[in-house]
Amino acid sequence: MSPPTTAGPGKIAADASSEPVAERARRPTVALQSAIEDVVLHPGTVRINVQGAFIVDDEPSTPQTEDYEHDPRDIRLPNHTAVVSHVAVDIGGSLAKLVYFSREHNATSIGGRLNFLKFETEKIDTCIDFMKNLKADYQQLNGSKPEELCVMATGGGAFKYYDRIREALGVEVIREDEMECLIIGLDFFITEIPSEVFTYSEDHPMSFVPCPQPPSSIYPYLLVNIGSGVSMIKVSGPRQYERIGGTSLGGGTLWGLLSLLTGARNFDDMLKLAEKGDNATVDLLVGDIYGTAYNKIGLKSTHIASSFGKVYKLKRAAERDAEDGCNGDYKHHSDEELVQGSSELEHQPSLFRSEDISRSLLYAVSNNIGQIAYLHAEKHNLPHIYFGGSFIGGHSQTMNTLSYAIRFWSKGTKQAYFLRHEGYLGSVGAFLKRQPRNWGRRNSFEIRERNSV
Amino acid sequence: MSPPTTAGPGKIAADASSEPVAERARRPTVALQSAIEDVVLHPGTVRINVQGAFIVDDEPSTPQTEDYEHDPRDIRLPNHTAVVSHVAVDIGGSLAKLVYFSREHNATSIGGRLNFLKFETEKIDTCIDFMKNLKADYQQLNGSKPEELCVMATGGGAFKYYDRIREALGVEVIREDEMECLIIGLDFFITEIPSEVFTYSEDHPMSFVPCPQPPSSIYPYLLVNIGSGVSMIKVSGPRQYERIGGTSLGGGTLWGLLSLLTGARNFDDMLKLAEKGDNATVDLLVGDIYGTAYNKIGLKSTHIASSFGKVYKLKRAAERDAEDGCNGDYKHHSDEELVQGSSELEHQPSLFRSEDISRSLLYAVSNNIGQIAYLHAEKHNLPHIYFGGSFIGGHSQTMNTLSYAIRFWSKGTKQAYFLRHEGYLGSVGAFLKRQPRNWGRRNSFEIRERNSV
Repeated sequence: MSPPTTAGPGKIAADASSEPVAERARRPTVALQSAIEDVVLHPGTVRINVQGAFIVDDEPSTPQTEDYEHDPRDIRLPNHTAVVSHVAVDIGGSLAKLVYFSREHNATSIGGRLNFLKFETEKIDTCIDFMKNLKADYQQLNGSKPEELCVMATGGGAFKYYDRIREALGVEVIREDEMECLIIGLDFFITEIPSEVFTYSEDHPMSFVPCPQPPSSIYPYLLVNIGSGVSMIKVSGPRQYERIGGTSLGGGTLWGLLSLLTGARNFDDMLKLAEKGDNATVDLLVGDIYGTAYNKIGLKSTHIASSFGKVYKLKRAAERDAEDGCNGDYKHHSDEELVQGSSELEHQPSLFRSEDISRSLLYAVSNNIGQIAYLHAEKHNLPHIYFGGSFIGGHSQTMNTLSYAIRFWSKGTKQAYFLRHEGYLGSVGAFLKRQPRNWGRRNSFEIRERNSV
Repeated sequence: MSPPTTAGPGKIAADASSEPVAERARRPTVALQSAIEDVVLHPGTVRINVQGAFIVDDEPSTPQTEDYEHDPRDIRLPNHTAVVSHVAVDIGGSLAKLVYFSREHNATSIGGRLNFLKFETEKIDTCIDFMKNLKADYQQLNGSKPEELCVMATGGGAFKYYDRIREALGVEVIREDEMECLIIGLDFFITEIPSEVFTYSEDHPMSFVPCPQPPSSIYPYLLVNIGSGVSMIKVSGPRQYERIGGTSLGGGTLWGLLSLLTGARNFDDMLKLAEKGDNATVDLLVGDIYGTAYNKIGLKSTHIASSFGKVYKLKRAAERDAEDGCNGDYKHHSDEELVQGSSELEHQPSLFRSEDISRSLLYAVSNNIGQIAYLHAEKHNLPHIYFGGSFIGGHSQTMNTLSYAIRFWSKGTKQAYFLRHEGYLGSVGAFLKRQPRNWGRRNSFEIRERNSV
């Protein structure tokens, strides 16, 4: 049997027309015609008016609960008035991300907003229940019949939980390809939403990219989507994409290993630990090996030569000391949470701080993703690298490490970009999938409804 | 502060002459002259006659001890008669590798052999003691004076332990650049030693590469040296090299994390655990997410989507069950060594087998190195990839994973090569560093000694 590899390359025949964007924009009647055909062919077709869309930072209107997290950065669509008869969900290995449209509670304002919610995939039933409630609300509000409603689903869970969702909700479930949804979602955020895309550095933590950008300055780009695992997708133009690589060392690896190695119960706690940690107690640095920098090849003494490279030695030394009946000269940490591992030597004092282990592993995973992303971008000559996926979670240390890795490896020639809705690319893409091509702020239009779909 | 990155690129101005090899071979008198100059300039100059060299598989003559490991694959040099007045040591982050020449104990045979020994770097004093004994033997056997002897040292420890070695032995210590030694050592093994270099596949575990190969079929190549950390070196010709990358996820990471996560006390035990493990209990596979393969991009259902991607979920579920006072429905393993992590829930039954964790991490680290190696080889257009360093340790699963990763990523266009002395590239390189250029089996020569150096 061949050993399994991590996520590999694979070519996708994207369904994009090869017609250039500028060409299409000059012929609105053709696009309109195509949009109308879309509506006829696909019951889930949505026509969202995104004119004047912006991010709101207010308290979510959904009740607080342990079952899900409502992202406080809803997107306000002040000019969308039509009924939306679908929700979209992206069900990944760890998280299910839900996007739906709701009317403003304030009756005097027109338009509405896109809501963003996260559920743990293992509690998929709470997500299904939530959608059931949305369905009931829709039916009550708009008088929609079940056959007029649908769920757009993407991610692996769209296949795994297909029957379960369809049976529970009694509506059509339309499955969409994961990669395609990711890049449709990302294109939407890049081209339509101001204050969404930003670069990160310690001096300028959130430097927003002007929006809109001309398409010529957007493509080609690399999307690095970091969830449980990591996918890397080359995007050459609107809906023109190819999965060129990936790695199995992603968020699931960090969370899995840290749940074994530290007492942390959730991702936020792990990231908090990492913020307080010092990786030099567990990582073998260039200075630890050389006693100084390795100047000949420009490696600083603080450079990580081996992640967790100090652990084996220190642990072995402690075990030998314990066998010899003495306490050794390693550091004791009496009042902090410390990690011992599962050695049989249960009475041996703890050696490593959870904080340090968390920081080391966060660095290791982020640096590694950064390096592989750089190498793929280099191979395919892609100047821009967008990082998406729930792993990032707006965490400054993660973004700083990814940004630094891209700058370091590319010697400043490539740039890392982040998004405020980084976890929702796939679900927004599924939500918008059937959207006619040249919609949007700059070419916004709305077809008068022929029915309430 | 910028976050530390893992091992980065760096250009080395190698001290190689740009003269082509074939050119030099045609002018032996010039080479001889240069060899004599080398002897005058460098007391550590060695002239090894490698004519008829071959690998012997017999019991090492050194006594068995816990302090070091004597590799059973000594290299016999049947035609070398001159006195060798130096030893060479490569001191890395985890291991110190020693190479020295000894006469045959059997008085009737001429020649002698190269011996290969490994010490743990943290027990560097046992290595120094060993060299002290060698020095005493040499002095007794050859009447050498201390000023005629020397230690060739490379690796980070050559700098860190420089004073300690010099003081303890009272001989000169000549420090050599780590990268240069690695490629000199590798070139020696590739060009001079039969049955040394091989390719690996499950059907043909050790398929030896014919030796000698013409230089035109050797260069350029990529050397991936896996110790505690990983260095990737592009080699364009004899002594023409550049460090083009690396990763901090290497042997130190595997050993460090496994020493925390399993009860294993040494590398061999960890590898034995890995052999018996099933990574599917901890890794999130494509099939776990999709319920099937992700055919559109050619990912099999057994493909690893996220290393350790199942751990967090299972652990959280177990914790919730424990909080609810029930036992849950997760698997119990009563009679095996199991890993719980350092959660506060000490009475909770163990969830993960050490075997499975070891296999998952071995796959993760090996796959990752394989992918990064492939990407660097691709970027620099290098068709051959040699894997060296102690991490590999002749372990079939590691070689299989690395080989498979290179085949998978390169779609069969690139080939992974391994060596029987994979851990000794640096120390052999240091041993041979001052070797005149056109020595060797094909152009073997030996200068008559002018003194006993």
